[in-house]
Amino acid sequence: MTNQPSKALDYAQRNHDRFVEELEQFVRIPSISTDPEAKQDMQTAAQWVADQLRSLNMNEVKIYPTARHPVVYGQWLQAGADKPIVLIYGHYDVQPAEPLEKWNSQPFTPTKRGDNLYGRGASDMKGQVIASLKAIEALMRTTGLPVNVKFLFEGEEEIGSPNLEAFIRAHKDLLACDLALNPDTGMIGADTPTITYGLRGLAYFELRLTGPDHDLHSGSYGGAVHNPAQVLCELIASMHDDQGRVTLPGFYDPVKPLSDEERRELSRLPMDEAFYLKQSGAPALKGEAGYKPIERVGGRPTLEVNGLLSGFTGEGSKTVLPAKAMAKISMRLVPDQDPQEVHQQLLQYLEQNAPETVRWEVITLASNPASLADLDIPAVKKLSEAMQTVWGKRPVFRRDGGSVPVVAHIKQILGVETVNTGFSLPDDNLHGPNEKIHLPTFLKGIDTLIVYLNSLAGR
Amino acid sequence: MTNQPSKALDYAQRNHDRFVEELEQFVRIPSISTDPEAKQDMQTAAQWVADQLRSLNMNEVKIYPTARHPVVYGQWLQAGADKPIVLIYGHYDVQPAEPLEKWNSQPFTPTKRGDNLYGRGASDMKGQVIASLKAIEALMRTTGLPVNVKFLFEGEEEIGSPNLEAFIRAHKDLLACDLALNPDTGMIGADTPTITYGLRGLAYFELRLTGPDHDLHSGSYGGAVHNPAQVLCELIASMHDDQGRVTLPGFYDPVKPLSDEERRELSRLPMDEAFYLKQSGAPALKGEAGYKPIERVGGRPTLEVNGLLSGFTGEGSKTVLPAKAMAKISMRLVPDQDPQEVHQQLLQYLEQNAPETVRWEVITLASNPASLADLDIPAVKKLSEAMQTVWGKRPVFRRDGGSVPVVAHIKQILGVETVNTGFSLPDDNLHGPNEKIHLPTFLKGIDTLIVYLNSLAGR
Repeated sequence: MTNQPSKALDYAQRNHDRFVEELEQFVRIPSISTDPEAKQDMQTAAQWVADQLRSLNMNEVKIYPTARHPVVYGQWLQAGADKPIVLIYGHYDVQPAEPLEKWNSQPFTPTKRGDNLYGRGASDMKGQVIASLKAIEALMRTTGLPVNVKFLFEGEEEIGSPNLEAFIRAHKDLLACDLALNPDTGMIGADTPTITYGLRGLAYFELRLTGPDHDLHSGSYGGAVHNPAQVLCELIASMHDDQGRVTLPGFYDPVKPLSDEERRELSRLPMDEAFYLKQSGAPALKGEAGYKPIERVGGRPTLEVNGLLSGFTGEGSKTVLPAKAMAKISMRLVPDQDPQEVHQQLLQYLEQNAPETVRWEVITLASNPASLADLDIPAVKKLSEAMQTVWGKRPVFRRDGGSVPVVAHIKQILGVETVNTGFSLPDDNLHGPNEKIHLPTFLKGIDTLIVYLNSLAGR
Repeated sequence: MTNQPSKALDYAQRNHDRFVEELEQFVRIPSISTDPEAKQDMQTAAQWVADQLRSLNMNEVKIYPTARHPVVYGQWLQAGADKPIVLIYGHYDVQPAEPLEKWNSQPFTPTKRGDNLYGRGASDMKGQVIASLKAIEALMRTTGLPVNVKFLFEGEEEIGSPNLEAFIRAHKDLLACDLALNPDTGMIGADTPTITYGLRGLAYFELRLTGPDHDLHSGSYGGAVHNPAQVLCELIASMHDDQGRVTLPGFYDPVKPLSDEERRELSRLPMDEAFYLKQSGAPALKGEAGYKPIERVGGRPTLEVNGLLSGFTGEGSKTVLPAKAMAKISMRLVPDQDPQEVHQQLLQYLEQNAPETVRWEVITLASNPASLADLDIPAVKKLSEAMQTVWGKRPVFRRDGGSVPVVAHIKQILGVETVNTGFSLPDDNLHGPNEKIHLPTFLKGIDTLIVYLNSLAGR
């Protein structure tokens, strides 16, 4: 480690408690993008992020409205024309906190227990956003920021970024850069720095069935009328075959087999069956036959039921034959799969399989392609070196099962690669109750970004 | 019609508006037996019924507490020892009103529109309870009540009468009678008086699956961990075969085939495919192959999904792989099927079919046998004649798909037959939104009971 980064690292160390306090402020804003009643909280969160950028003396900070939640943009281009422009991505929205009764502390009252800070969004990704901002602050307040930076913070990642592609397209010049940095992926363990080179795409749908035009008495009509809840179950059951493969017509056609090298690389990750059993608490694992869990998550497409609702679901019994049944169904896609083609495949499946006893409707809630990054570019090698500096060991490379739509858009529209990193851990309970961030890892993340930004400038 | 009943009939006619007002008072009490928060309303409803009985100068009126909701009992035994004792059954509880947004008026604010009075419980069965009480009142205030009566009103019918059997067993002498009258079944049309001779039993369960021990990120775990919502769909889908038959092991073993005579009788009812299509609004019908809809409802056992719940069901998208999935599943049973055997069949089905990737649990919510009445007894012939007197046409006889547990208990414990009648109509939306009662039919129902009670005494 050279002397120069060490001053910024010292600054980060000294200010660690304040950084955590600011993260707590950020977590307190319940910026649930999918909740129509959180519209004001979304504005508050966008404003909070913009204020953070202003405190860093960005040349320009602007909140851009979109059809739904605003984009926050900031830039600082004083490093010199010979220095790269790094576009740092983040999202200030979070997932809903339900089921609330499963939380050990209030989701929007950040609470420290041991080395962890608990709260919705603490890890995904308010903690990662703060890590990025604080790495910039540490450099600015000590040795100077060595690269030009642009910040692109959206408020719709957790609802599939419906307006982000159009925004990037409309602001292509504003966002022009040499490299994008996405700190929204995670590490496979606190001692294992991780670079994610593949991300799955996401096609997310709501399937609504209607049978009778009103709820019926299950005694007076049971047997005569086809129950849409039963039809829904039959349709979903047949979406996988007995090998755990998705049965939508043509689903696997564009899917390239995993190469031997990819399978070797994936099998080196410390994410075996025991890991998934422990992290999930499931009594046994299951998925597509012929693949290990890490291969199924990282390198194969999947179809999941995210929600089911029909009829009476309260306490006790109600003898109703429901009029409607609903499922939230999403597919995680690998490169070369097109989310819009998957939409067509779902429609075709329903046309072929839905009985005439129900009417059906499909609502598209997200439609984003997968991405696969080039590992040979200098930006990735430098991130790898920065991680080695901070952790004292080389990072592992993995394909992640999650989806960050922006990566594909940046490649396609701005023509630049995105380096995916981030400092969340597998037990951070992203999207679940008791989400938390591991604070020692959060601090190492800030250090890594300080070292990395310096190295991008040749320091 | 003799002169004697006509005085009581005149009384009923003159007091019709007040009868409807009292029904409205009764409907205003939200006595939802399945709702733990309606405990006080259940007490209020029981008290209201007891007050009605007191206003009829019963010899004895008493509210008996049970493990859950009280039984209201009343008796009047002044008709003479040579006159029969008629046990009149009713329930003062109602189904939940959800989905509330589907109601055109508030469910517990009774509202007249045209010939109908809308409100939860108006038809099932507060209207039928009022019809019984007002027939007694009309006789008492005019020509005198010609038979001895006992009233048995429970508050748990809509949750499967869990404490009724024990109550009847414990009060066998108190309830001793010559005949029971159950006005909780309905008519197949406003112009078609109906006597129901068969009722299906009910076995109602909640099936709970747990996969992972907390909700997971569907990207990070989708493909590795078996989704319990998908498992639930697969288990439910396989509970019927491609002929629409229930696949629980041994389910049909005790089921007697419908006799040719029964099929002929059922086919004479004006309840054809067009009837079920119109009443349900479903685009097409489906059920067990080889049977007409009326046969499937009246004479065959069925399995229905009454509710489904898993994961995220709010607006928008949440990429969660849910930890749990729940279904409410109930079976309507024909005579000779034992609900406790059906419980064992469900457990056996799950042991054979549930994968090791989930833990499962079955909660029993109702367990009641079916009943089939003797059509040749005088009490049925006299009801038939009373209906002919009021409607000017002979009633039809049918087996109904619904369940009224008390009928089987009365036969088994008290050793007497129950005559099933009642004046609800197929479009009364029992258990659904916009439940209503047809007021002209309600009045004819009171008339029928007046004529019937007279005829039971030989008047």
